[in-house]
Amino acid sequence: MTEPLPPGSTIGILGGGQLGRMLSVAAARLGYRTHIYEPAANPPAADVAHAVTTAPYEDLAALARFAASVDVITYEFENIPTSALDALEAARPIHPNRRALAVSQDRLTEKAFLTDLGLLTAPFAAVDDEVDLAEAVEEIGCPAILKTRRMGYDGKGQARIMTAEDAVAALAEMAGAPAILEGFVDFSHEVSVIAARGLDGAVAAFDPGENVHEGGILRTTTVPARLSPAQRTDAVLLAAKILNALKYVGVMGVEMFVTPKGLIVNEIAPRVHNSGHWTQNGCAVDQFEQHIRAITGWPLGDGARHSDVVMENLIGDDIARIPAIAREPHAAIHLYGKAEARPGRKMGHVNRVTGR
Amino acid sequence: MTEPLPPGSTIGILGGGQLGRMLSVAAARLGYRTHIYEPAANPPAADVAHAVTTAPYEDLAALARFAASVDVITYEFENIPTSALDALEAARPIHPNRRALAVSQDRLTEKAFLTDLGLLTAPFAAVDDEVDLAEAVEEIGCPAILKTRRMGYDGKGQARIMTAEDAVAALAEMAGAPAILEGFVDFSHEVSVIAARGLDGAVAAFDPGENVHEGGILRTTTVPARLSPAQRTDAVLLAAKILNALKYVGVMGVEMFVTPKGLIVNEIAPRVHNSGHWTQNGCAVDQFEQHIRAITGWPLGDGARHSDVVMENLIGDDIARIPAIAREPHAAIHLYGKAEARPGRKMGHVNRVTGR
Repeated sequence: MTEPLPPGSTIGILGGGQLGRMLSVAAARLGYRTHIYEPAANPPAADVAHAVTTAPYEDLAALARFAASVDVITYEFENIPTSALDALEAARPIHPNRRALAVSQDRLTEKAFLTDLGLLTAPFAAVDDEVDLAEAVEEIGCPAILKTRRMGYDGKGQARIMTAEDAVAALAEMAGAPAILEGFVDFSHEVSVIAARGLDGAVAAFDPGENVHEGGILRTTTVPARLSPAQRTDAVLLAAKILNALKYVGVMGVEMFVTPKGLIVNEIAPRVHNSGHWTQNGCAVDQFEQHIRAITGWPLGDGARHSDVVMENLIGDDIARIPAIAREPHAAIHLYGKAEARPGRKMGHVNRVTGR
Repeated sequence: MTEPLPPGSTIGILGGGQLGRMLSVAAARLGYRTHIYEPAANPPAADVAHAVTTAPYEDLAALARFAASVDVITYEFENIPTSALDALEAARPIHPNRRALAVSQDRLTEKAFLTDLGLLTAPFAAVDDEVDLAEAVEEIGCPAILKTRRMGYDGKGQARIMTAEDAVAALAEMAGAPAILEGFVDFSHEVSVIAARGLDGAVAAFDPGENVHEGGILRTTTVPARLSPAQRTDAVLLAAKILNALKYVGVMGVEMFVTPKGLIVNEIAPRVHNSGHWTQNGCAVDQFEQHIRAITGWPLGDGARHSDVVMENLIGDDIARIPAIAREPHAAIHLYGKAEARPGRKMGHVNRVTGR
């Protein structure tokens, strides 16, 4: 095994949102400094970072200066422009790798990759035009979901299709963006596995969490999830299969539907994931530190859970409930330092340590 | 109850060491920014702070700019020059208050304060010259410890006295600094209580921890401590008495000796305390967040412990053991980002979550 990145080294993080913020704190805990690259001014991560660059992803000079100032680069979101990645990758190692980004940036590529691995996904079909659409609706049936292939998150860029007419209207809304039609999956609940793979190829996973969404946004994650021992093993093995196939380095979030036919992979995210925030108060090594360990060559934490946790996202006006939550004895509050509480905006989360 | 300090406000922290670093992370978690004031360049806290001022405590202009940029001021160490406090206090509230600092900056004042409260301390006597010293040795007996009244920490400024001749030599070493002679206490073990008092006067305490020192430096803290239920109650009540008497706001560390005659107060520290680091992995609200809650007007965490923890300090070359510790399944590592591992220097700590 190679030596870990020396203490005092600097980790470059693309994106200064809450994930970058919590990655930065974890990096500091392991003795590293962080440098945040973020187009928006005063991002959440800036409050806990050693250095911040405020520049667009198109600014090649800023990217070059950033790369020169760091020892390794990672990211907190998957929609990084290819040109920026090209410029950065020429200068410094980037983890997770380009293949993981390519797979997760495009829903069609992602589904094809997963089915090639022999994993179950929702039925899907590519939709580039009305002809494709008619065929896809015919094949998959309704209800279904039309999604843009790229740049979707938190339920954005998606439309539920109940009839063939819905489908035509939804496609028109997407204004020519390449799309994918996904069939509905009859699932009892959704779980996710937060898994990590190190530079040495070792894989570790946290216990699966059970997710509840509202309006396309994650509301709560509960650990342990309702899963049989066999399902639990399946979930972890399935995630490991994905990481190994991609020669992935870092933490990945893998969302799955629990169905009578087995676990169906919904989506992968090549980064720390909202459904892994519970690890901050349930594990000695949380998902953020696990990611930093993976990309810097530390041994991975084994994912052991010392406490059960229910994570609740604080979205928009939920922030007004903080005074009450602050009085709960087992509530660990994590705010992101965002000034304005817009509807749908993730302002923080609370991990309720519920026992063991 | 008054409203808490609004989110997005800035907390000024005097001192940029590891305590300032961990306070800064806790402040961010509650949605605050921090501004560190520290004479030394690149202090540990700078890696996770919104702003840093590098200036001596004698630089009144820098102090004024610092105060103007923050909403409330706190500190991570007790030996802040009086002139700096005068300048800052004129501009912004400082918590904990001056009385707590005055008491803890001077071992004689501290002992007098504690005995006035009816608490037990080691026998003590002021020593300003050889005449005092002879009387003190006569009264207290040997063995005893001669300590400077001010500026001592981690066993510095202390000499063990076995004979009257030792005493004379030790006093000469102190070069005229006012001193105090303390009698030895026959104790079975040392415990500490990390207690907090809020702006509203509410008091909360974490479970007492049991401390082991080596060479005058804290080595480990184990929670729970070996204490009877009655001793546990005594320890917490005693700490609360101290905080209330000082109208204290913030977290305080209270070290006590466990003896057959009862709990004897060794020392108080008007700040977060090394023996409270275990709370980071044992409680939903740790001592650092508790301090930020106290000084910003949040309700205090109740100190509930979800897990047992053994905290071990990583001192000097201990840092070389990190690769092995990183492989332990229940070890939570907290490094301070210090470049150089000098003997006796606190480089980090590890919290081993041992069960519940």
